[in-house]
Amino acid sequence: MVRIAIDAMGGDNAPRAVVEGAVWAAQDYNVPIELVGKEDIIKEELARIQREGIHHRRGGLLKFLNQNIKIDTSKLDIKITHAQEVIEMDEAPAQAIRKKRKSSIVLAVQAVAQGSSDAVVAAGSTGAAMGSALFGLGRLNGIERPAIAVVLPTMKKPFMFLDAGANASCTPEMLYQFAIMGSTYYKNVFKVENPRVGVLNIGEEAGKGNELVQNVYKMLDENTDGINFIGNIEGKELFHGDCDIVVCEGFVGNVALKIIEGSTTMLLNLVKQEFMSDVLAQIVGLLAKPFMKRIYKRINYEEFGGALLLGVKGVTVISHGRSSNYAIKNAVRVAKEAVETEVNRKIAEIYQ
Amino acid sequence: MVRIAIDAMGGDNAPRAVVEGAVWAAQDYNVPIELVGKEDIIKEELARIQREGIHHRRGGLLKFLNQNIKIDTSKLDIKITHAQEVIEMDEAPAQAIRKKRKSSIVLAVQAVAQGSSDAVVAAGSTGAAMGSALFGLGRLNGIERPAIAVVLPTMKKPFMFLDAGANASCTPEMLYQFAIMGSTYYKNVFKVENPRVGVLNIGEEAGKGNELVQNVYKMLDENTDGINFIGNIEGKELFHGDCDIVVCEGFVGNVALKIIEGSTTMLLNLVKQEFMSDVLAQIVGLLAKPFMKRIYKRINYEEFGGALLLGVKGVTVISHGRSSNYAIKNAVRVAKEAVETEVNRKIAEIYQ
Repeated sequence: MVRIAIDAMGGDNAPRAVVEGAVWAAQDYNVPIELVGKEDIIKEELARIQREGIHHRRGGLLKFLNQNIKIDTSKLDIKITHAQEVIEMDEAPAQAIRKKRKSSIVLAVQAVAQGSSDAVVAAGSTGAAMGSALFGLGRLNGIERPAIAVVLPTMKKPFMFLDAGANASCTPEMLYQFAIMGSTYYKNVFKVENPRVGVLNIGEEAGKGNELVQNVYKMLDENTDGINFIGNIEGKELFHGDCDIVVCEGFVGNVALKIIEGSTTMLLNLVKQEFMSDVLAQIVGLLAKPFMKRIYKRINYEEFGGALLLGVKGVTVISHGRSSNYAIKNAVRVAKEAVETEVNRKIAEIYQ
Repeated sequence: MVRIAIDAMGGDNAPRAVVEGAVWAAQDYNVPIELVGKEDIIKEELARIQREGIHHRRGGLLKFLNQNIKIDTSKLDIKITHAQEVIEMDEAPAQAIRKKRKSSIVLAVQAVAQGSSDAVVAAGSTGAAMGSALFGLGRLNGIERPAIAVVLPTMKKPFMFLDAGANASCTPEMLYQFAIMGSTYYKNVFKVENPRVGVLNIGEEAGKGNELVQNVYKMLDENTDGINFIGNIEGKELFHGDCDIVVCEGFVGNVALKIIEGSTTMLLNLVKQEFMSDVLAQIVGLLAKPFMKRIYKRINYEEFGGALLLGVKGVTVISHGRSSNYAIKNAVRVAKEAVETEVNRKIAEIYQ
């Protein structure tokens, strides 16, 4: 059975939210967990959860959705691996990994490398998680650079977007490999034959954009690897749902991802502001809540549970630094799905 | 008095929406207009507006805001300049400008070059408008490349974002000049002393991002041109309103702009979908309309009226290809403000 290693100390809300999300996933998905971090702290958290349960908390407009969930941790398959060090968010990742060999993220990755777990989930420093995975697990054969892949909602079904920030600058060859990795993931996890691949660009025609996208366009257009290339895709079309995998270099992808987060947050905050403006607004706001709830559920990044680091030997899921217990729970699900569908083995086969 | 030349034939809704927006602006802002395009068609449009007035139409949820506006075109200062050709959206801009010397966009720019108008507003092919302005007006002294600057809403006041697509690839020197042009515009039009300038990046620290942003960071940090540089800014912070001018290269800026458009449109469509789902939802939707109206008004790109092409000798406003009459009206206002505040003269002075 798949076991998931989790860096219990990583993220703004660790260890509390991380341990809660992990046991919640253990209960809901029936998946064994390996919590990596300071043993006494983790044990305290588990005892607290046993006593108090988990609070599924949503902020602002969605407070009415809050609920308490009871969990009997004694019935779950939870292993603790002690790690005495923690890499903080503000440390330079490369040095921190070298210096803190006994840190929770390094040991969580090691658990996968040594086979006690099958995947790692991390919500701490993205750089440290990437570095640990790259260093501790190594690249898949033939893959030049791993990419961060995120799944985002559209008006129809979700699409996969990579690279969301692993590599600021990329070559056309790297983007081509991202297309292969994204297609393989999408096909296997979302069970879609011939998922459609697009290049994020500033126009639809083949000659548009900078040198990088012009070159990868040519490579994808002539590909014999079975990539279902549908051409360039512009930012405003991303959310139409007509493309399943969108590739771009990490600088552009990271900017794009954070702008999506920023603009939708602003819009939701504006809605909240308006529904707070006076008593009448508050009444209408109350009536509108169930509808806002459904919308929120459709676009909430927590539902997607975190980004995948595709291209390393071992499933690595990187969660948002501000992950709640609910986001961590979903990150564990994403890790479990990637392991069970053997995405990495299938990517590696292409390069054999 | 400032006169604004308008390419009456450019844009998806031309000539109707463009002529309507122009006369609406002429009435509301008391600004003389020069309509450039096929004379008989423009005259027909003006006659129709005289008979029927202008319909201020908003789609979907906001239908209840629709209204008819009466306009007496005979009382307005409207000049028509005949242009027998039109550059279509799908033509290659550089060739089209050379071939169609009597096209509406080329002649609208010429009106500014020859002094019969003080600014040009164009909603057709962005490439053709840029090319015509660059070719017909020339660059401001010292400016390497013009940039497309857009104004976007935040939780607080709007910020200016450039380059939104004039130059796919940029040098650090170009981004530095964008910072100067953006600051000069913001200071003069929005009457803000020392507007804050940020570099769009994938992290806050000085060493983050690709070579381009690392280098422009250094240049801005050491600047002696009075630029109020506040450092790197991430995508999710754009909408906090803590930065007045954000610079980036055109590829990134264009992707970003279209993603903002795409993600907010998706969210508004989801709201619409939910408020249509059943009778109860429709009732709540009706009650929520006034609140949605205020939100929509705060984020509607039409309010900002179009992008500026900063760096050419002459005010050039490029409107969205899908511009409504209302968007065109606001584009005329933006052009008028830029002329009246002498932004171009002030930019040129820096390079004297």
